[in-house]
Amino acid sequence: MRIGVLGAGQLGRMLALAGYPLAKSFVFYDLSGSPSAGLGEVIVDRDGDYLDDFLTRVDRVTYEFEHLPVDVAEKIAALKPVHPCPRALQVCQNREAEKTLFGELGIPTPQWRIADSADSLRQAAEELGCPVVAKSNTEGYDGKGQAVLRAPSEAEAAWTGIGHPRLIVEKFVDFSREVSIIAARGEDGEVAYYPIAENSHHEGILRYSVAPAPKMAADVDDQAKSYIRALLNELNYVGVLTLELFQTADGLVANEMAPRVHNSGHWTIEGAMTSQFENHIRAVSGHPLGNTDARGYSCMINIIGEHGDLDAIMRLPYAHLHLYNKAERPGRKLGHVNILADSYDELRWRVKNCASFLPGCPEFDVDL
Amino acid sequence: MRIGVLGAGQLGRMLALAGYPLAKSFVFYDLSGSPSAGLGEVIVDRDGDYLDDFLTRVDRVTYEFEHLPVDVAEKIAALKPVHPCPRALQVCQNREAEKTLFGELGIPTPQWRIADSADSLRQAAEELGCPVVAKSNTEGYDGKGQAVLRAPSEAEAAWTGIGHPRLIVEKFVDFSREVSIIAARGEDGEVAYYPIAENSHHEGILRYSVAPAPKMAADVDDQAKSYIRALLNELNYVGVLTLELFQTADGLVANEMAPRVHNSGHWTIEGAMTSQFENHIRAVSGHPLGNTDARGYSCMINIIGEHGDLDAIMRLPYAHLHLYNKAERPGRKLGHVNILADSYDELRWRVKNCASFLPGCPEFDVDL
Repeated sequence: MRIGVLGAGQLGRMLALAGYPLAKSFVFYDLSGSPSAGLGEVIVDRDGDYLDDFLTRVDRVTYEFEHLPVDVAEKIAALKPVHPCPRALQVCQNREAEKTLFGELGIPTPQWRIADSADSLRQAAEELGCPVVAKSNTEGYDGKGQAVLRAPSEAEAAWTGIGHPRLIVEKFVDFSREVSIIAARGEDGEVAYYPIAENSHHEGILRYSVAPAPKMAADVDDQAKSYIRALLNELNYVGVLTLELFQTADGLVANEMAPRVHNSGHWTIEGAMTSQFENHIRAVSGHPLGNTDARGYSCMINIIGEHGDLDAIMRLPYAHLHLYNKAERPGRKLGHVNILADSYDELRWRVKNCASFLPGCPEFDVDL
Repeated sequence: MRIGVLGAGQLGRMLALAGYPLAKSFVFYDLSGSPSAGLGEVIVDRDGDYLDDFLTRVDRVTYEFEHLPVDVAEKIAALKPVHPCPRALQVCQNREAEKTLFGELGIPTPQWRIADSADSLRQAAEELGCPVVAKSNTEGYDGKGQAVLRAPSEAEAAWTGIGHPRLIVEKFVDFSREVSIIAARGEDGEVAYYPIAENSHHEGILRYSVAPAPKMAADVDDQAKSYIRALLNELNYVGVLTLELFQTADGLVANEMAPRVHNSGHWTIEGAMTSQFENHIRAVSGHPLGNTDARGYSCMINIIGEHGDLDAIMRLPYAHLHLYNKAERPGRKLGHVNILADSYDELRWRVKNCASFLPGCPEFDVDL
């Protein structure tokens, strides 16, 4: 079976690395002009002229990013099986649609309002009570197109700063930590859940994910599963879905979802029985899902901007290096390291030791 | 770094899958006309016209099979770093040279003689005492070009049957089991040993490898390490080397070595901290070696001839499937399954259960 991947970055690369052992081959369709997957056939198509050509070469289609135009996804879906479905894409591209769906399914979200002017932004900030976070309703990514308002009087500046005609305004959530749950759903409706990961972001970029998340109460765990299960079933979803959540004193509050394999699931390559990448390929191909159990305790450390001392990291007997073969650039995800351990105590010092070889890596701040 | 691989079969494929996460890219040089690696750039060169072209594209060269003509390897070595060195290749292509080297290094072998006629074969059988095994001195592979003599009178028929001008005749070894040790040596001379595997062959084809080998005494383990270390250092070897051994009441006896990653090391993909493939790439690239510790108990089951019920295997929560994307053909290696467990008892029933989905798979006969 030949799988077409829309996008040709590191997620596509890791999907392919997981799919070859299942006898899949891969064709990447790149809209950016700078594919980095580095393996498989790549069709670079900045002007959108070769989509039909791409489709004739593949049996099934999936994607590695949620910013694909929905009309393109729908056009593809009319010709070849596309997983996940275009509706999942549509929901993820529009925060208002996403939060509305969360609400319909009983998944808690921060209180929110829509603002379509500086004035309505100010009014939303007053109604919700500051601080609030204003985000462009579409096209936001990794903290871009966002502003925090400490007072309603900051609305004018925030509106101008974001420069988007429609914003979603969220009441600030007083959370103790950020977590994510990743699950896969097969063609037959079977669902498999990965252990929840605890995530640590710095300057809007994920730096650490620890899995299984420490000190996770069983009822909170069940809550997370019920939320992602509701989404998977409602969307008749096939593939891997990620749900980012805030943990608060009153339970979990959904931040956003991503219709794909996710950076907070990279630990699964060595840290779970079946990686998120393999399970996505299994689901998209119509195979049974693989076991999502953790193998010990894992922490994923992102390599951001600079590679650091890679030879030193390769010498660590508990570290697995995954490079994306990209040139260094500030803020760019260049790779990640998976740290394995048999206990949280062991994991803590191993992570700190590894991080010391990564320049600019923030201090490990997950409470194990 | 771009690595050139001489050969384009499943070993090359698995080397590439392990090498991409270390930011390597791959060019395969295929002499067979039927490459199966399925990823990376492949130069098919049945007539040997494109070797120079291949060499201009790569930084370092390795190989996935030991049947490469030594003069080709030497020609390459004059232009690019080749690991392992051509001498290792030369030794492995000639059983007499191999056994002579083993003898020089104090590595026990079966008693052996050279035969260059039916008459000298008969004489060798008489001197050694039957049963003996006669093997073509060069070009033998997976039990081909071999004959067992139960009596010296069978020499004429065996000589004609093998049809090779120079044979090595070995006294039959009364062994309790077949094991193999795999080790990697880095450019700096560092050596890392994998746990010994116990191997079960049927009709000359490896069917099961269990690692770590059960009931392995520490002194026998040390013996195996000292033998492979002697070979690695004598050959100034860089990369992964495999040494196949018979375990007897008097200790270990060397069968043969392979200058490459080996089927009996496929369990390392999920069963060891660093796979044999990654360690070979690390060594060839001049990186530090990775941790060779086992992660629990593993058994590799080869998929031979027919694929069987792959969906059933994918449903097993302890099985990892590795397909080579090849068409079915009797006796052909199509893939393997790695079974993981936390104890030998658990491993036994898991292996038996998985094998039940593989048509023609012989009964699991490793004594755990």
